[in-house]
Amino acid sequence: MESPASKSRRPTRRFWGWGAEQDTLFPPEEAAVAEAVAAHGAAPAGPVPRVEEFALPPPRVAPPAALAAMFSATPLDRLNHAGGKSYADLARMWLRQAPHVPDWVAYPADEAAIVAILEWVSGAGVAVVPYGGGSSVVGGVAPPAHGFAASVSLDMERFSRVVEVDRVSRGALIEGGAYGPDIEAQLRPLGLTLRHFPQSFAYSTLGGWIATRAGGHFATLATHIDDFVESTRMVTPAGTVQTRRLPGSGAGPAPDRLVLGSEGAFGVVTSAWMRLQDRPRFRAGGTFRFDTMESACAALRGLAQSGLYPSNARLLDAAEVAFARVGDRVSPTLIVAFENAQHPVTDWMTPAAEIVADCGGIALAEQGGVRAADAWRMTFLRMPYYRDLLVGAGVIVDTFESAVTWDRFPAFYDGVRLAVADAIRRATGRAAVISCRITHVYPDGPAPYFSYSVFGPDGGLASALAAWREIKAACNAAVVDFGGTITHHHAVGRDHRSGYDIEVPALMRSALADVKRRFDPAGVMNPGVLVG
Amino acid sequence: MESPASKSRRPTRRFWGWGAEQDTLFPPEEAAVAEAVAAHGAAPAGPVPRVEEFALPPPRVAPPAALAAMFSATPLDRLNHAGGKSYADLARMWLRQAPHVPDWVAYPADEAAIVAILEWVSGAGVAVVPYGGGSSVVGGVAPPAHGFAASVSLDMERFSRVVEVDRVSRGALIEGGAYGPDIEAQLRPLGLTLRHFPQSFAYSTLGGWIATRAGGHFATLATHIDDFVESTRMVTPAGTVQTRRLPGSGAGPAPDRLVLGSEGAFGVVTSAWMRLQDRPRFRAGGTFRFDTMESACAALRGLAQSGLYPSNARLLDAAEVAFARVGDRVSPTLIVAFENAQHPVTDWMTPAAEIVADCGGIALAEQGGVRAADAWRMTFLRMPYYRDLLVGAGVIVDTFESAVTWDRFPAFYDGVRLAVADAIRRATGRAAVISCRITHVYPDGPAPYFSYSVFGPDGGLASALAAWREIKAACNAAVVDFGGTITHHHAVGRDHRSGYDIEVPALMRSALADVKRRFDPAGVMNPGVLVG
Repeated sequence: MESPASKSRRPTRRFWGWGAEQDTLFPPEEAAVAEAVAAHGAAPAGPVPRVEEFALPPPRVAPPAALAAMFSATPLDRLNHAGGKSYADLARMWLRQAPHVPDWVAYPADEAAIVAILEWVSGAGVAVVPYGGGSSVVGGVAPPAHGFAASVSLDMERFSRVVEVDRVSRGALIEGGAYGPDIEAQLRPLGLTLRHFPQSFAYSTLGGWIATRAGGHFATLATHIDDFVESTRMVTPAGTVQTRRLPGSGAGPAPDRLVLGSEGAFGVVTSAWMRLQDRPRFRAGGTFRFDTMESACAALRGLAQSGLYPSNARLLDAAEVAFARVGDRVSPTLIVAFENAQHPVTDWMTPAAEIVADCGGIALAEQGGVRAADAWRMTFLRMPYYRDLLVGAGVIVDTFESAVTWDRFPAFYDGVRLAVADAIRRATGRAAVISCRITHVYPDGPAPYFSYSVFGPDGGLASALAAWREIKAACNAAVVDFGGTITHHHAVGRDHRSGYDIEVPALMRSALADVKRRFDPAGVMNPGVLVG
Repeated sequence: MESPASKSRRPTRRFWGWGAEQDTLFPPEEAAVAEAVAAHGAAPAGPVPRVEEFALPPPRVAPPAALAAMFSATPLDRLNHAGGKSYADLARMWLRQAPHVPDWVAYPADEAAIVAILEWVSGAGVAVVPYGGGSSVVGGVAPPAHGFAASVSLDMERFSRVVEVDRVSRGALIEGGAYGPDIEAQLRPLGLTLRHFPQSFAYSTLGGWIATRAGGHFATLATHIDDFVESTRMVTPAGTVQTRRLPGSGAGPAPDRLVLGSEGAFGVVTSAWMRLQDRPRFRAGGTFRFDTMESACAALRGLAQSGLYPSNARLLDAAEVAFARVGDRVSPTLIVAFENAQHPVTDWMTPAAEIVADCGGIALAEQGGVRAADAWRMTFLRMPYYRDLLVGAGVIVDTFESAVTWDRFPAFYDGVRLAVADAIRRATGRAAVISCRITHVYPDGPAPYFSYSVFGPDGGLASALAAWREIKAACNAAVVDFGGTITHHHAVGRDHRSGYDIEVPALMRSALADVKRRFDPAGVMNPGVLVG
């Protein structure tokens, strides 16, 4: 399955955009993007970047002969591992700039190979970047710019198996490089599911989800992959750490919690025992519009504190419904759903609907046979593909998410949008709408997710990218200044360091740096993320 | 409120047993204990230990003059802080042995005082043991036997306030030394509750719960105090770590998870923002007997995997119901309950009862107006008081808990009981029944809690204590050998180190030791627990 252009055995990925080359937009979708670009007076995207347009320096050092067969230095492999899928990653590719590509991409097929690679890089001063699906939007998989003899992107694609299933405990041992669809395809015949569906599902991996504490399908309870982790196995330069399969424990600081969120800075997550679920059979839900964001938030808070635990409780503000064409396209809209494998959940939806009605929510009827939830989901999954063409057309398009307690949310919601709009105006001279949806909720607060687009900033893509850097710094400052977390589920990476270093106390970061030194004495694991 | 005998402002505690001197057994309870002891041919407990019976060495070093006012070296204070409330702790007191008492007990009233104490002890090579309610049953609050110039027990009793309540987010800032009743008394007027009810509730503190990852009221979902922690504040010798109030985050390894379970080895938890709940108004439940433990476990597993999340799902095996006089006193018995503040929960109980019935569970009627759950709860809360007299009568009486995945539970349940019964026979020549209840359940496994009593071992209390050490080592080995955790919610302390060091990989323990060194460079914080 390998080609001369790549040692990957997966379908060829777009190095300048989302997905595989085989994934394309439908003509009406492409037309809609072109129309939006034209409506703002911007020029459409030119031809998409081609590998041949990039002049890459030769690899600086060669891997040991015994390992060479698993290494690739083809331009496609190196470009595909030069970064993740943030706006900046893509804009650079459209600019035909790839200043920092890994010298090599390694495709180990077993743990012994990873151990050998980590031994070599530790001794040779070569940086190594663990690479799952490459969907990072926070600069989490880019090689370091300097300070190392060379850099290697360690692609986990060959660790894609569900190794063992324990039906009684509903657990499975899954390899770290398994993509979302790999996992579900292997579990489906057994009637089981991991049911972790981030937007990146098709192009992200179990190991990546664990390393970044990814957010998934559920709006309440198990909001992060964290909650499904029963045990982890992490290969580090100092040795392999295998935690014990346990449903719960109180024995010291939870070991898996040092693996969760480690972002490749401590080691490579090669496998994990994961808690599974039965496939849901019963569903109930509704879509509700509100006159104001305040009343919608009151309803959402009521649901979050009700003990009902809806699987979905997603609130779209007025700007978000307009963009996603949901509901009446004007009113803040709340989507609520329950699901269960064994018993009907209408008895859950009834008290939920009462809470919503008490706060002024009005149930929406189905629209032309497509429910608001479905309409929204389609936009959600197709968004990364739309974005590719927008970036190429010079549009700055980005998202950021946080979480904050309910008492702070009103000031947070207004303050963050204002601060980011101001930053956009300063950086581009343009006005932009910052839309917000709440994707996950907790009894003590919501996790808001903001999106914005800036059409037609002056100066083309290069100045758009420069403007983005200013805007991103303002986003980081705003979410942390208004009491939120720098990231609810996109990780810290390099792009969120300025906020992370404020959010987490210096002494705690020093302790985490000590942990890193223990696992990675040479400091070669994904340098620059988190605390490195 | 201070007396010449103690600088504590709390009611005087029993240094040789559970509770305060004012808490006494009712005469019928006392008679029942005496009857049980006599039935086994053992002698009743002699006179209870008195302070005057202990000859304590004078304190080895004096605290700085500026701090002296908050220090006490009265014999009562020193004896009361010599250890926790494990069988061994109490047996030693009945033996009039207190080989390792702290030189001093400190009662700081504010954080500045704690900072000053930690500065002094770090410089002077004095060990300091953070002390909440002193309810440790794992050797978690004992001063080190050697290696230090002196030892100080740092009693947090004066940090007892609910400082601030955020009704919107349902959170409260609570000081680390607040006992369970302090917290609930301050929250009750607001209609709120923390609803964390460990058996030690009356004599344990928020800071202690956090440091030991205590298990509470709920059988599912928020089983540990961990889940209610929004942010923590920990004073360490290297500085104070204050985490941010957040409902959720994905920013690196979760900082609070390094505080949770730190067992006083990193620092002192002075306060925490905790997630609260509305006081429940609606309840539904039932009690069910089963013909076999296997069918009872199938029902419990069905409930745990149902998505219903009962607040209570407690399974008592045949030995446990006989001891606690629950149900028909013969059959494995399952107690199930739901509760909610806003809406009736009968619609939850209906599918739960179906799951139970499908596995052969038969609903029990109320017994003489007292439901099985109430009968059980009374035994549960009074047990520590009964135990005091049993220990004095030479009875070895202890409990231990674990958690294990469902696939391993049958072998674990049989294997652990057999191994411990064998150890008891070897150590004492006596047969003993090991009873089991399951206190918390997860989709992937139960948390079993074992109890045993050995009546009338030969040789009196001294040899009973020696036998206990052998039995405890066997318990530790058994739970870990059969795939469980060394502790589900009692912490590691010194007594569980032999199991902990097997359960948690050496490299991970080294990383935690590095964290300890960062927070506690002089190694004076609660030496001997966890990784010290």
